[in-house]
Amino acid sequence: MPAYTAPTKDIQFVLDEVLIISGSDVPGYSDLQPDFTGAILDEAGKIARDILAPLNAPGDTEGCRIENGVVHTPRGFKEAFATMKDGGWNGLDLPEEFGGQGLPYLIGIAVGEIFVSANMAFNMYQGLTHGAIGAILAHGTEAQKATYVPRMASLDWTGTMNLTEPHCGTDLGILRTRAEPQKDGSYKITGQKIFISAGEHDLADNIIHLVLAKAPGGGEGTRGISLFIVPKFLVGEDGSLGQRNAVAAGKIEEKMGIHGNATCVMNYDGATGFLIGDLHKGMRAMFTMMNEARLGVGLQGYAVAEAAYQNAVAYAKDRLQGRAATGAKNPDGPADPLIVHPDIRRNLMDQKSFVEGARAFTLWGASLIDRSHRAGDAEAEGLISLLTPVIKGFLTDKGFEMAVNAQQIYGGHGYIEEQGMSQFTRDARITMIYEGANGVQALDLVGRKLAADGGKHVLAFFGLVKRFIKENEGSEALKGDFLDPLKAASKDLQAAGMFFMQNGMKNPDAALAGSYDFMHLFGHVCLGLMWARSAKAAQEALAGGSDDKDFYKAKLATGRYYMARQLPMTAIHLARIQTGADPVMALPAESF
Amino acid sequence: MPAYTAPTKDIQFVLDEVLIISGSDVPGYSDLQPDFTGAILDEAGKIARDILAPLNAPGDTEGCRIENGVVHTPRGFKEAFATMKDGGWNGLDLPEEFGGQGLPYLIGIAVGEIFVSANMAFNMYQGLTHGAIGAILAHGTEAQKATYVPRMASLDWTGTMNLTEPHCGTDLGILRTRAEPQKDGSYKITGQKIFISAGEHDLADNIIHLVLAKAPGGGEGTRGISLFIVPKFLVGEDGSLGQRNAVAAGKIEEKMGIHGNATCVMNYDGATGFLIGDLHKGMRAMFTMMNEARLGVGLQGYAVAEAAYQNAVAYAKDRLQGRAATGAKNPDGPADPLIVHPDIRRNLMDQKSFVEGARAFTLWGASLIDRSHRAGDAEAEGLISLLTPVIKGFLTDKGFEMAVNAQQIYGGHGYIEEQGMSQFTRDARITMIYEGANGVQALDLVGRKLAADGGKHVLAFFGLVKRFIKENEGSEALKGDFLDPLKAASKDLQAAGMFFMQNGMKNPDAALAGSYDFMHLFGHVCLGLMWARSAKAAQEALAGGSDDKDFYKAKLATGRYYMARQLPMTAIHLARIQTGADPVMALPAESF
Repeated sequence: MPAYTAPTKDIQFVLDEVLIISGSDVPGYSDLQPDFTGAILDEAGKIARDILAPLNAPGDTEGCRIENGVVHTPRGFKEAFATMKDGGWNGLDLPEEFGGQGLPYLIGIAVGEIFVSANMAFNMYQGLTHGAIGAILAHGTEAQKATYVPRMASLDWTGTMNLTEPHCGTDLGILRTRAEPQKDGSYKITGQKIFISAGEHDLADNIIHLVLAKAPGGGEGTRGISLFIVPKFLVGEDGSLGQRNAVAAGKIEEKMGIHGNATCVMNYDGATGFLIGDLHKGMRAMFTMMNEARLGVGLQGYAVAEAAYQNAVAYAKDRLQGRAATGAKNPDGPADPLIVHPDIRRNLMDQKSFVEGARAFTLWGASLIDRSHRAGDAEAEGLISLLTPVIKGFLTDKGFEMAVNAQQIYGGHGYIEEQGMSQFTRDARITMIYEGANGVQALDLVGRKLAADGGKHVLAFFGLVKRFIKENEGSEALKGDFLDPLKAASKDLQAAGMFFMQNGMKNPDAALAGSYDFMHLFGHVCLGLMWARSAKAAQEALAGGSDDKDFYKAKLATGRYYMARQLPMTAIHLARIQTGADPVMALPAESF
Repeated sequence: MPAYTAPTKDIQFVLDEVLIISGSDVPGYSDLQPDFTGAILDEAGKIARDILAPLNAPGDTEGCRIENGVVHTPRGFKEAFATMKDGGWNGLDLPEEFGGQGLPYLIGIAVGEIFVSANMAFNMYQGLTHGAIGAILAHGTEAQKATYVPRMASLDWTGTMNLTEPHCGTDLGILRTRAEPQKDGSYKITGQKIFISAGEHDLADNIIHLVLAKAPGGGEGTRGISLFIVPKFLVGEDGSLGQRNAVAAGKIEEKMGIHGNATCVMNYDGATGFLIGDLHKGMRAMFTMMNEARLGVGLQGYAVAEAAYQNAVAYAKDRLQGRAATGAKNPDGPADPLIVHPDIRRNLMDQKSFVEGARAFTLWGASLIDRSHRAGDAEAEGLISLLTPVIKGFLTDKGFEMAVNAQQIYGGHGYIEEQGMSQFTRDARITMIYEGANGVQALDLVGRKLAADGGKHVLAFFGLVKRFIKENEGSEALKGDFLDPLKAASKDLQAAGMFFMQNGMKNPDAALAGSYDFMHLFGHVCLGLMWARSAKAAQEALAGGSDDKDFYKAKLATGRYYMARQLPMTAIHLARIQTGADPVMALPAESF
């Protein structure tokens, strides 16, 4: 069964040496001294290793089951959930007035990586609750916040998001769930929602559903959509649980993975709902949560890959098979360990250089959200809004690919469920789909974010890359290995943007046909930037005489690998983009 | 539930217009007139559509189960197996003297694609039998052939291959199963074999295991290995079934996919075995079967992708979601079908251009095997030996990737098992692993095949590409769209080979670090060649006034897509290869 050890040192490297958060002017960041964050990460790491990770494979095998509308989570989940509750982990980055600890979002994300790596399916119960709290805090009335948030922050109650219906997911404009206004100001919600993660379970006393539905008078399409709070049990004014609401799980889906999380069909049969935010402005309310939710899914992509990688490394060091081409490395054994073989290294280096780059990228993204929320920085807000589809789409595509790579290290043993490597692949697969399938992320990036506000966010990004290169051009250690490749990759990204500008106006398909490649091109440039920044930090630590030379040297070697062997992918993405719409759209639909 | 229709027209296009088999001088090929092969493919297509495909998803859900050593296959498999038996499908390309129909191997492969697409797990029972027959035909005594082959050809009995043990798969030199010689010339086989596909089941009266084991006196490593026939029931001189042999399935593995095939742990407790081939030359006996077995797995890679593709297309045409960026295409409906969206097209074109190119590549490979076996053509033998790891490694990596792509078209519906798209991904995953994990294919390609016989096979390949380009350079239709990109890609492949020659001698790791990229680079060049050849055929058909213009135009458009958007990948593979061993090997093992 796979094991997991939180990579606290790598996380702290990003926080303290790459992002240098304790020196940041974002309110709250000056408290984030290494000792303090280290203690939090260590504690999270212990829970992850000792409680969550051991439940991951059993939770996959056992799965959830439904009996008369009651969903049972796998054995051990209840006790583990109690641990999360007792530790106040869900409230880490929630406001103190609602029972949280008021730490920056960045810390929630750093801890989140650890919990997700250990047990993604389990962590979703908490993660979705956190997302629902975000919506209520952003759009709820004071009374709604007071009623729901403290109990959700404490995990007495959990939350869900209800968007998808059988006939629509991406295109919410055609959803059918109806909200009928009642005399008392509430609504009767009627319709069916599907793919509702944590829609029903036995971990909490109440479940607070956030539901998109159409109320009369809103017109066609997404304009007619409003957002409603629909609690499983209605809540009295004193906070007590009242009547069971007319909402129930009709079934739970058999899925490829995340079996420990109950994915429910939710039936709303005139359930009592309460409008949250403005009437007919439900889409806007959902969208304000999107950045965080999508960053959270990008995190899942690399967090699962991290767990898979750790086990692939252990196996590669342990499994004896064949001899090194350069002479036996384990001459007294029957064979050498797998890790001597260059192609095994290639595979492991792909994983390692991705995961570490992705972590830096995601934590940087989280710090931009903090800067936007806590310091009201509009540039940070614009930048993270641009980068969000990249974080979500690129990191989940690559995270899945790396989970597959890790599974491959095990050979035949990777294919049987007993070893647990198949689960990482199966679990990671969903991250490419939910919270907006990755094709939709690419569409969002190219069709909306790129040109938003006159394109100033992407220009800000280019400025940032340029500045970093300029500031560090004097460094011999960075120049050839890091800055030159970064500059070339960034030029490819600019050329792609230019192509869209010149061709997308005449024919939107010319841009959209390249949207997926653009998302990946952008992702590579971001990871290239993060590796250049990480290399600078490592270089400085070595120059400063750190006594942890191996750690920093490994950072440099891993970064060099990424720059030399992954970053050049930008050229092919650009080449594809520049072929325009023709190759993609040439075939009439009936010829497929 | 997914449906499947055999792409007989596409298969025949390759046979009749690209490979032009009926005009070939390979013995037996002149009989392969379009009407004749068409009738066979149609009949196979009917069985695939009506009998095998409908059992695919149920077989996945139900899986195999073991009770007291008896393995039960999923409901319906017995009846379907009887259909395969009655139709004589397994004997299609086996010698007539053993009850086969004596057709070329190529036809077996063309039909094999259809059966694998419809139900990969089911088809393995037959496919492994076919492989075992190949070993017996190549290395068995006349008596062994007479005893086993006719009953296996007819599928009264099935066969297996037993290589892997718990501690070794790739590195068979360290295997532990022992063969003790007996006075009567037989051997007592003792040991445990794992991951034995179709190791035990209820579809046949007897199971003929081919088992690698070490007999005394063979020395260390692979030199000591011999191959043995170990029947489940011993066979009397009159062909009757005798005593149950001391071989039994200890358990069946829980796997990620191919649940309809029983993957068994086989325990040999002094089982009676009969030497096949020369003592201590078992590895050689296995290797002579490798080309065909590995080509068969490469076929699985694209055959599963074909089935997934068909369903992705159907969904993309049916599912209404969003509006085309260039204006509504289905204005009377609530939304446009997915297929209007450029990124959906991009995804589908990736799949289509891969599958069709892969089919041509595989059928060409099969024709090289026929040319080698039937015409004793040493050049063909050398070429297919070089191309085999490319067919296996590249087509299965890409086949899996395309199954994932097809699943992605379904959005959330692709993740739930009910829709059947997850199964294609899970089934395809094994093809990258078994019959030599793809990293081992890359090692075989670069470490062995490339330089074999003084490198003359790869030179023959380059000659072939060059000749094709030269012969067709006058064609305007081919020049810019097909020949120029093919030439560039082939140059990349040559440069990569050159890099290995110049650096691999000094440091084998410099070549091996690039082995995986080389395999993919080579694969792209092969598919580029196949598309150029296909384009030529399509062009000629159009020039000849074919009244099936849409079909040939689609071939050209699909080929152009591959050349414009996939083939340029050769540049990045070359760039990676040229970084040599350093980036890959820089990190000490303890830094992973």
